[in-house]
Amino acid sequence: MEIKLDTISSWAKRKGFVYPGSEIYGGLGNAWDFGPYGIELKNNIRDLWWKEFVHKRQDIIALDTQILMNKKVWQASGHVAGFNDPLMDCKKCKNRFRADKLIEEYINKSNDSQVPKNWAGEGTPTENLSEYIIEKNIICPKCGALDYTEIRKFNLMFKTHQGVIDNDENLVYLRPETCQGIFVDYKNILNTMRVRVPFGIAQVGKAFRNEITPGQFIYRQREFEQMEIEYFVHPDDAKDSYEYWKDEFYKWWTDILGIDKEKIEARELPKEEAAHYSDCTHDFEYKFPWAWGEIQALNNRTDYDLKNHQKHSGVDMQYSDPKTGFRYIPYVIESSIGLNRTAFVVMANYYNEEKYIDPKGNEQNRIVIKFPFNIAPIKYAILPLMEKNQEMLDKGKEFFEKLSDKYVCEFDKSGNIGKRYRRQDEIGTPYCITIDNQTLQDQTVTIRDRDTMQQKRIKIDELL
Amino acid sequence: MEIKLDTISSWAKRKGFVYPGSEIYGGLGNAWDFGPYGIELKNNIRDLWWKEFVHKRQDIIALDTQILMNKKVWQASGHVAGFNDPLMDCKKCKNRFRADKLIEEYINKSNDSQVPKNWAGEGTPTENLSEYIIEKNIICPKCGALDYTEIRKFNLMFKTHQGVIDNDENLVYLRPETCQGIFVDYKNILNTMRVRVPFGIAQVGKAFRNEITPGQFIYRQREFEQMEIEYFVHPDDAKDSYEYWKDEFYKWWTDILGIDKEKIEARELPKEEAAHYSDCTHDFEYKFPWAWGEIQALNNRTDYDLKNHQKHSGVDMQYSDPKTGFRYIPYVIESSIGLNRTAFVVMANYYNEEKYIDPKGNEQNRIVIKFPFNIAPIKYAILPLMEKNQEMLDKGKEFFEKLSDKYVCEFDKSGNIGKRYRRQDEIGTPYCITIDNQTLQDQTVTIRDRDTMQQKRIKIDELL
Ligand SMILES: [Zn+2]
Ligand SMILES: [Zn+2]
Repeated sequence: MEIKLDTISSWAKRKGFVYPGSEIYGGLGNAWDFGPYGIELKNNIRDLWWKEFVHKRQDIIALDTQILMNKKVWQASGHVAGFNDPLMDCKKCKNRFRADKLIEEYINKSNDSQVPKNWAGEGTPTENLSEYIIEKNIICPKCGALDYTEIRKFNLMFKTHQGVIDNDENLVYLRPETCQGIFVDYKNILNTMRVRVPFGIAQVGKAFRNEITPGQFIYRQREFEQMEIEYFVHPDDAKDSYEYWKDEFYKWWTDILGIDKEKIEARELPKEEAAHYSDCTHDFEYKFPWAWGEIQALNNRTDYDLKNHQKHSGVDMQYSDPKTGFRYIPYVIESSIGLNRTAFVVMANYYNEEKYIDPKGNEQNRIVIKFPFNIAPIKYAILPLMEKNQEMLDKGKEFFEKLSDKYVCEFDKSGNIGKRYRRQDEIGTPYCITIDNQTLQDQTVTIRDRDTMQQKRIKIDELL
Repeated sequence: MEIKLDTISSWAKRKGFVYPGSEIYGGLGNAWDFGPYGIELKNNIRDLWWKEFVHKRQDIIALDTQILMNKKVWQASGHVAGFNDPLMDCKKCKNRFRADKLIEEYINKSNDSQVPKNWAGEGTPTENLSEYIIEKNIICPKCGALDYTEIRKFNLMFKTHQGVIDNDENLVYLRPETCQGIFVDYKNILNTMRVRVPFGIAQVGKAFRNEITPGQFIYRQREFEQMEIEYFVHPDDAKDSYEYWKDEFYKWWTDILGIDKEKIEARELPKEEAAHYSDCTHDFEYKFPWAWGEIQALNNRTDYDLKNHQKHSGVDMQYSDPKTGFRYIPYVIESSIGLNRTAFVVMANYYNEEKYIDPKGNEQNRIVIKFPFNIAPIKYAILPLMEKNQEMLDKGKEFFEKLSDKYVCEFDKSGNIGKRYRRQDEIGTPYCITIDNQTLQDQTVTIRDRDTMQQKRIKIDELL
């Protein structure tokens, strides 16, 4: 079975996981909404992350800062000056391209062994891009010309205005990353929360990037959700802490989300690919059926951000060690995970098409999503066997009410029972519970396992 | 004890519930961030709502649509043409005011019995406002003049541009309400989710309004979170459904969040105050210690929205009844709750200052937040009595690890035990668990009740 990106995206649309955003009005670029099962899946991932890194730990607390922040934040962080895409137009056909993406595509297609295999383009200066395009004769993909305008830098932050007048004074940006909110509120945390270094601040929230070329379904959207942790450490401890977090996050992917070990890789980025503020960067990558893709960045941001904010705001960002009295600006180990991307990873990882033999001995195909119990949008489907039998319906409803106090359940009363099983397989429900005639007599139900398709009969009380 | 708005806001800032947004850069209008305890509180409210209205019901499913939508959505909904504030400038001092707010302030202060007590100003036409201001001699609050410019309408939607060029073509709005995402995706839900009328679609998410006069702490922010349900019914059933939901939401406030019944009121809005699309509107109001304030709107939106989207998109929005085959556009009963506002209600409702007699017989004051268990940010504080006793620390940590798998706990090892109790009272932790010498001998701990301040000794295993 070959799983393509289209296999996943069309299943997701068909089964209520992901819908195209603003579809009835022709959409909006690469905008996607989460449908009823998608939002449950995404929330489950978010809650697992929160439980693991906030609730179960003594050393990490959370925060929820605004999307709209004072624009000085982005001047201090370097985003106003430096958060750009290199754009150029083809003079002949007037189409616009990201120079770095054209080069990347060229590299991926070419067998030129001179080309650096891991080249990502993010950090490469504009002049080098131009030279490279001429040198390698990278022609316009639309018309075949080699006649581009100069490369101009285009800032990726969405701009808006707060207040009545659209002037520079009132300009605000939609945050392009959630972490700056953490740095800006860091002093408030120090002052009110009795934290001691090392400690971390976690945040989940939306961020926005005005990408010219979003794409690959929910992999790269202009509006997306991040789950970030900024972990503050003594500069001497930064290297050890970095290694510690690298291991912890490997466990997040493999132990908590259950992703196969051979499909997760932490790749160290060479200096020229990493962000300029980062002393060391690993990209966690997932092996999608069609390609490896970045799903998390681990950075040693050093004291770059706190120092910048200290400089621009005039607020002292030093931490005072209560034991030694020594004052210093902590280093920061950052983990940045895309929540939408993680949902995509989970969908791709657990999607299966398989053959089985039905009760009549015929070979059949089924789509079955083998979500682990903790991720599955619906944990139990409650299926009264006969829709017309009021007693069965009532029993089913009674059971739904009890079970849904603890687990997310679905009640599905109509249609052929085999079809109802298939439908639950396709949304990844681990267990189907059937209410039948025998239930009414002896308070037992059949419980069907999604993966083995085995059924067994058990007492209702036992299940609850 | 008189509780003022300042009492709550300064407690919230001091105790890590709410911080001023972008504070180190001088803030950003009335922007607020949720601190470590605030975000736990807000998440608890969100999760209770979600459990009650999505998970425990068979007839409501959820959705998560984007903040950025195609601009045609807002043309169809009427927001581009009609979502305005009436603004005017004082010609003398050049200050800018919301005409309706000036009138509202005048009415609240005046004893003029001719003035309608419940006047809200939202729906009043511009001409009437001007006349009223002249008639009642409502002078400029800054300089005392009665010399205003004409009233102009200012659209409340934040605008931005998606794409490289800032032209009309690329204009997009930040959504001013989450419900339109539900109407826009309604057809996708019908096509993929096998729902049958009556059914509801729920959404929690951010919305943005470029208010000229935000204020009252987190009560009115430009960036805020909504919890909305659009419940689709046959037009003949709309009135009954409306009454049903009015009762259900009354229970949300009183039974689930535990708000005193005399502090919650559902007030029917006269036609002239209600939104133009609403056939019937009730505002739920909460009696803050300083004033009544709106916290929820219940609307019968009729088929206004689906009809508009059908007209503008050309997509058939009819529902086909599977039994009768009859096709119709459903009516919509809407519940719209502000999540930030609900957090504020909960803070104000459970904030207490009280006197008690300490073990030495002296009268003391304490701040104690009497959050119910289901809302409290921290459920259990685990307090090893002596920081220097490694065995006690280890025991405490062991206990924290076990308990925090199920409940949100805090581990606090340092300082006078009385002060540590006080600190937990001030953040509303229902129970403090103290690990002492006896714990090391017989595996018992003391558990202290926040409200009664009584302690009792119980076995650790019993607690778990
Ligand atoms: Zn061209
Ligand atoms: Zn004036």
